Amino acid sequence: MECVIETLASNVKFGRGATREVGQDCKNLKAKKVCVMTDKKLSKMSPVQITVESIRKQNINYKVYDRVRVEPTDESFKEAIDFAKKEGFDCFVAVGGGSVIDTCKAANLYSSNPDAKLLDYVNVPIGKGLPVTHTLRPLIAVTTTSGTGSESSGTAVFDYLPMKAKTGIANRALCPTLGIVDPDHLITLPERVAAYSGIDVLCNAIESYTAIPFQKRGPRPEDPILRPTYQGSNPISDISCLYALKIAAKYLKRAVYNADDFEAREKMHLASLFAGIGFGNAGCHLCHGMSYPISGLVRDYREEGYDEAEPLIPHGLSVIVSAPAVFQFTAPSCPERHLEAAEAIGADVSRARKEDAGKVLRDTLLKILRDIEIPDGLNALGYTTEDVPALVKGAMPQHRLIKLSPRPVNEDDMAGLFEKSMKIY
Amino acid sequence: MECVIETLASNVKFGRGATREVGQDCKNLKAKKVCVMTDKKLSKMSPVQITVESIRKQNINYKVYDRVRVEPTDESFKEAIDFAKKEGFDCFVAVGGGSVIDTCKAANLYSSNPDAKLLDYVNVPIGKGLPVTHTLRPLIAVTTTSGTGSESSGTAVFDYLPMKAKTGIANRALCPTLGIVDPDHLITLPERVAAYSGIDVLCNAIESYTAIPFQKRGPRPEDPILRPTYQGSNPISDISCLYALKIAAKYLKRAVYNADDFEAREKMHLASLFAGIGFGNAGCHLCHGMSYPISGLVRDYREEGYDEAEPLIPHGLSVIVSAPAVFQFTAPSCPERHLEAAEAIGADVSRARKEDAGKVLRDTLLKILRDIEIPDGLNALGYTTEDVPALVKGAMPQHRLIKLSPRPVNEDDMAGLFEKSMKIY
Repeated sequence: MECVIETLASNVKFGRGATREVGQDCKNLKAKKVCVMTDKKLSKMSPVQITVESIRKQNINYKVYDRVRVEPTDESFKEAIDFAKKEGFDCFVAVGGGSVIDTCKAANLYSSNPDAKLLDYVNVPIGKGLPVTHTLRPLIAVTTTSGTGSESSGTAVFDYLPMKAKTGIANRALCPTLGIVDPDHLITLPERVAAYSGIDVLCNAIESYTAIPFQKRGPRPEDPILRPTYQGSNPISDISCLYALKIAAKYLKRAVYNADDFEAREKMHLASLFAGIGFGNAGCHLCHGMSYPISGLVRDYREEGYDEAEPLIPHGLSVIVSAPAVFQFTAPSCPERHLEAAEAIGADVSRARKEDAGKVLRDTLLKILRDIEIPDGLNALGYTTEDVPALVKGAMPQHRLIKLSPRPVNEDDMAGLFEKSMKIY
Repeated sequence: MECVIETLASNVKFGRGATREVGQDCKNLKAKKVCVMTDKKLSKMSPVQITVESIRKQNINYKVYDRVRVEPTDESFKEAIDFAKKEGFDCFVAVGGGSVIDTCKAANLYSSNPDAKLLDYVNVPIGKGLPVTHTLRPLIAVTTTSGTGSESSGTAVFDYLPMKAKTGIANRALCPTLGIVDPDHLITLPERVAAYSGIDVLCNAIESYTAIPFQKRGPRPEDPILRPTYQGSNPISDISCLYALKIAAKYLKRAVYNADDFEAREKMHLASLFAGIGFGNAGCHLCHGMSYPISGLVRDYREEGYDEAEPLIPHGLSVIVSAPAVFQFTAPSCPERHLEAAEAIGADVSRARKEDAGKVLRDTLLKILRDIEIPDGLNALGYTTEDVPALVKGAMPQHRLIKLSPRPVNEDDMAGLFEKSMKIY
């Protein structure tokens, strides 16, 4: 039986203006040549400008890489890795949302061990899931969204184009040396980005809180380096998740519709950070596993605020559409935890019965989703029931995630979950 | 104004049998020569034996240093530092309570920068409080008590004999690479050690939760490396503290009186860890500042379970005796936080008025102290009102702590607090 958890923790700096200190942080890390990684859109905006200015002030050599793809792929990862290999950086600074930070983690991981192949560290079964035994360069992650929690997790997610499937690398070694959560960057977050990154926070936290307990994930690995980063729910991630849920439920709507409601946007940043600490140690399960083919098989869906040339289903949206069906499915396996999660996001559970846990959590969640105008299920994203077999095929191999479901799931269950998610209201 | 917090976080492994993995952890850290640091009593007990056996199994070179002093001094620190300098270790493993882990932090800090003088990194005003700019060796801290939280903090405390005062080093660089919280080690904890380490948890958490807010601690330092480790209360330490309080209040009595109540002792271990994360980032204030002369000026107090040859007031006891007076004194400055802390340890605050906050917190705390037979104040520890001037003189220079008090304190206030602490029930 597994009876040990290993919590991952990056140091995190939180507060307005923390980005202005990045140059000094680099200096204190003894950096001589820094890679500043970002995306095209952000490269012209203040978070990157402030970062670069602070590095310049310390007379530290740096180069900006702004070709990160939103929702990265193996190809966009490789391009960033090649750039890092060629330049030989001794420090990385990622400025952006999950896509930027994840790409930077990959660039750091592979450029510091140039002989490794991309699939070596990618999660099983798509990759080999090898342990990381080499030392990475310091990585400072300046987050500009409040959803992924990537600044405090060891996870890097990408689309693996040869299989049209999302997968990722989940390893403690990838955890940033320092995460910077500077609420100043949230003031410019477009409404829909605030909405979709906010619901990602909710899902990260509910899934982690309802994931199988770490003791049941066993057996204990022979070497602690083989212990998965996603370990199942545990007392340390539990308190982070419940706190994230309480905060997110309270401030999400305000944060979405009032870009200048600084308090609400700051609180969502905190919620995102705590959910990141939660899922970074416990792991998500079905909603995230199912989201991978949902975003991977996108046809022509586009969202305002995400000005990519190609169709794109934002990560948080791809995750949340299955949540109502998923939590009804998983509730019978641990109804208490589903009720506790429901209570954290605002339900009155004083008279709720265990057998109602799934319904209570679903209804409470749906109220929040309606409040911030989340599209009505997979249909609204361009899918029909005819797509279910392909979606199931893309979700089942996400072992790292779906094996953390508190209720085991087979192909029929999965098909049922996708079908029930066609319309959610 | 200061508006940034930097949270310190050591990775922590939690669970039964985690100590058996220490050798593999050392191997994964690429250790070639490990210093196992402990005290005489523990050196013959299972936590050390299991640690050493696991290192031996990996064929890693190691030496055991078992001359750590319980409640260490500058002299005992220096002895450990000299040993580490002479041997040239590339990895440290501390197995013990706060005294052992703190001594090991010092041995690591100074042996990795052999030119530094002891006072260079010691807190102002006794030492110079210099920033740490060199790289330390990895340190694994296996905790055997559930009180100090030293396994997850950057603090090392010692008695500075030339001034008969407790002081310490508080620096993020000292935070262990990996803290190991293995509840198996708690089964042998003597009753009084469980009691006094348990009340230390309570004080760490209440003080950190009621410390001045980080925004008021300002100004923002010119370089982030100069930001103090103890930053004042902040949203990240707050949730750790409240969680620690809830758990400790619920399980302390059971953990003290039933050595075989595994659940209760395990929960106290978790509470200690969370309080450590809380005070390691926020900082304690008056109770801890006042505890330094209380333990430093000890005459002939001895406690069962602590089999030192010399008189000794256990740390938790030296901290808690002033708590009833302190929280009544500090409550008017932030009554809401005092009420929230009282609620976390079991008070019904639904009808409490703000002006009662100090009394409510004091009474709730006293009930817990009575339950586990904590001695009745400074009188019971051998002090009388005649000692107050000397106690005040020892407490006032503890700037790092007393400046975090939410209510400023002068010499007269301090004298009053010591006087009110002569008897607490």
